[in-house]
Amino acid sequence: MTRLVQYEDAPPEARAVFDAIKAARGVPDVNNFWKALAVHPPTLARTWDSLSQVMAPGALNPLVKEMLYLAASMAAGCAYCIASHGAAARAKGMTDAQYGELLAVVAMAAETNRLAEALRVPVDPRFD
Amino acid sequence: MTRLVQYEDAPPEARAVFDAIKAARGVPDVNNFWKALAVHPPTLARTWDSLSQVMAPGALNPLVKEMLYLAASMAAGCAYCIASHGAAARAKGMTDAQYGELLAVVAMAAETNRLAEALRVPVDPRFD
Amino acid sequence: MTRLVQYEDAPPEARAVFDAIKAARGVPDVNNFWKALAVHPPTLARTWDSLSQVMAPGALNPLVKEMLYLAASMAAGCAYCIASHGAAARAKGMTDAQYGELLAVVAMAAETNRLAEALRVPVDPRFD
Amino acid sequence: MTRLVQYEDAPPEARAVFDAIKAARGVPDVNNFWKALAVHPPTLARTWDSLSQVMAPGALNPLVKEMLYLAASMAAGCAYCIASHGAAARAKGMTDAQYGELLAVVAMAAETNRLAEALRVPVDPRFD
Amino acid sequence: MTRLVQYEDAPPEARAVFDAIKAARGVPDVNNFWKALAVHPPTLARTWDSLSQVMAPGALNPLVKEMLYLAASMAAGCAYCIASHGAAARAKGMTDAQYGELLAVVAMAAETNRLAEALRVPVDPRFD
Amino acid sequence: MTRLVQYEDAPPEARAVFDAIKAARGVPDVNNFWKALAVHPPTLARTWDSLSQVMAPGALNPLVKEMLYLAASMAAGCAYCIASHGAAARAKGMTDAQYGELLAVVAMAAETNRLAEALRVPVDPRFD
Repeated sequence: MTRLVQYEDAPPEARAVFDAIKAARGVPDVNNFWKALAVHPPTLARTWDSLSQVMAPGALNPLVKEMLYLAASMAAGCAYCIASHGAAARAKGMTDAQYGELLAVVAMAAETNRLAEALRVPVDPRFD
Repeated sequence: MTRLVQYEDAPPEARAVFDAIKAARGVPDVNNFWKALAVHPPTLARTWDSLSQVMAPGALNPLVKEMLYLAASMAAGCAYCIASHGAAARAKGMTDAQYGELLAVVAMAAETNRLAEALRVPVDPRFD
Repeated sequence: MTRLVQYEDAPPEARAVFDAIKAARGVPDVNNFWKALAVHPPTLARTWDSLSQVMAPGALNPLVKEMLYLAASMAAGCAYCIASHGAAARAKGMTDAQYGELLAVVAMAAETNRLAEALRVPVDPRFD
Repeated sequence: MTRLVQYEDAPPEARAVFDAIKAARGVPDVNNFWKALAVHPPTLARTWDSLSQVMAPGALNPLVKEMLYLAASMAAGCAYCIASHGAAARAKGMTDAQYGELLAVVAMAAETNRLAEALRVPVDPRFD
Repeated sequence: MTRLVQYEDAPPEARAVFDAIKAARGVPDVNNFWKALAVHPPTLARTWDSLSQVMAPGALNPLVKEMLYLAASMAAGCAYCIASHGAAARAKGMTDAQYGELLAVVAMAAETNRLAEALRVPVDPRFD
Repeated sequence: MTRLVQYEDAPPEARAVFDAIKAARGVPDVNNFWKALAVHPPTLARTWDSLSQVMAPGALNPLVKEMLYLAASMAAGCAYCIASHGAAARAKGMTDAQYGELLAVVAMAAETNRLAEALRVPVDPRFD
């Protein structure tokens, strides 16, 4: 698998991002995703910065944002992201019943997405 | 583009589904998606039946379900589905601000999904 | 849209491939796909050569091969390929009922593919 | 990996589906896919119900349906589904030569799908 | 299609980004992509900011970066992005011959990507 | 995982391709990809033949071609291909800094590809 950069081996710019993540989340260590990204410190810094902005509370509450992130990750088939955002959604209060319904919506979307494309359905004028 | 089966040309099994959709949604005609699906009445019937079950109110409210559907459709890049579920989410109350944040989450997920896969990041044991 | 190279404007290497396609298929002109590929004659020649080998009759009959091609193109969401291989499958005898069932299988696969990935299901040992 | 619900721990609605699968297939236990889906019994029941309808013999024979399912799963890159439907196709009689040709068609489709999209080829009027 | 926000209708935060893009590129107006993104000014600002950082000259020259962007967009099948980054690569000096070879590499990658996944090939230990 | 055909068990047509790969690359054994492909010798031969043509030096130098292959494989999320073409790019001289920038471009493309599709942005007339 990929090279994971540990805190003690990280260059200063990466260490600063690790510190920011640990402080924001109140955790003793960062996830593997961040350790892997540290192979390119500018991408590590930019990704954390963007993610913090995007996931901040706003017009959508944090649990809904996390479930949207999980749904998009399931639709894209990213195993790591499904695992990490699934855990994050649980931590923010997603119940088993909510998870089951999210799963059903994502699966249904996959089926109708495919049907709409396979049939090359023209967009209804009233949608625009 | 695809062949769209109009109500007057639809076989009885398809017409029954069209009637059910119109009644459930209180609309005078069905969307192009359903007219296109009518080329195979068993798939039309099964899809409507499944969709009704999946989108019924439950542990998640209808707007959240619709936004999850939209996010999954955006992640899959289905233009028709983005248009139809975007319109449906608006009809269920999605505001401009909520739409903007949903878009940002989906875009961010696309970026981190790709990074996690490109780096082949191993799943953290604590996620499972 | 893309630049389409017409026969009269094509360089000799491209013209030779156009001639081979017209002869093999008994048609007066080639499809847009080949005219578009002619912007890079080596890719045009290689693609036609590979396609001819892959689609030749073998352990699978030509209609089954064409339906597999159509199913894969639907799963990948390629609108042009769905249109062209849909037309080719019709020309090789695909009936409305067979098309409807193919569509249903592709849609069902999209749904269960997504579910298997979303749930990160481990492969059963007996499959290998 | 994912949580797999065993028969003895399954709630009654899930157990009923497990029983139906075992009876239909004449097997002593269900695959991991169904055990994973049992985290949401309504999705488990709906998926089995839909799959049974879609895969029933019809205008296409069961082996062709299974090969279409396999081709679509390969095009979508779902490892679990490739393993399970590959095993199912073998069980229904797919030979090594047929498998090799299916693989070649799926790979060729991936290449030409990408080329058609990269070149943004306009659909030929005669396809519609 | 989507709503495009013109300069005169844009809110101040969006207008500032439009001005920055026009200044950086020396163009009288921004592309549709930016006008569409202006429906959510924070995403517009964040995207322009990230793009500027990522595409700045560095260890890779601007033409190579633009060709990598084009290749990734082709692999993802994004028609708009193929058109816009294709035009950008041409503007940075991509020749017809380079474009043809890029197309061939992307198509070949699509085929071998699919084969590697369809065959579920285990990663060779020496790659890591 | 998949069945890997070793040299000593390979049929003559597959062995000839293995010999050609070993000679061209100066390696004592072929990668797992080729051993897996040997289950269908015609696909093995055709794939090696195509790959040799596509990756030969031309208007783009071998390192740029390899990086384009890697970028396309990352965009498609093929873990095996990311590992093998990542190793090949390193062998052809890709530095850590170049790898980091390639990763950033691919991630950025994923985000803007998704945004362009989610917003259904119309192609600017001047791109064509």
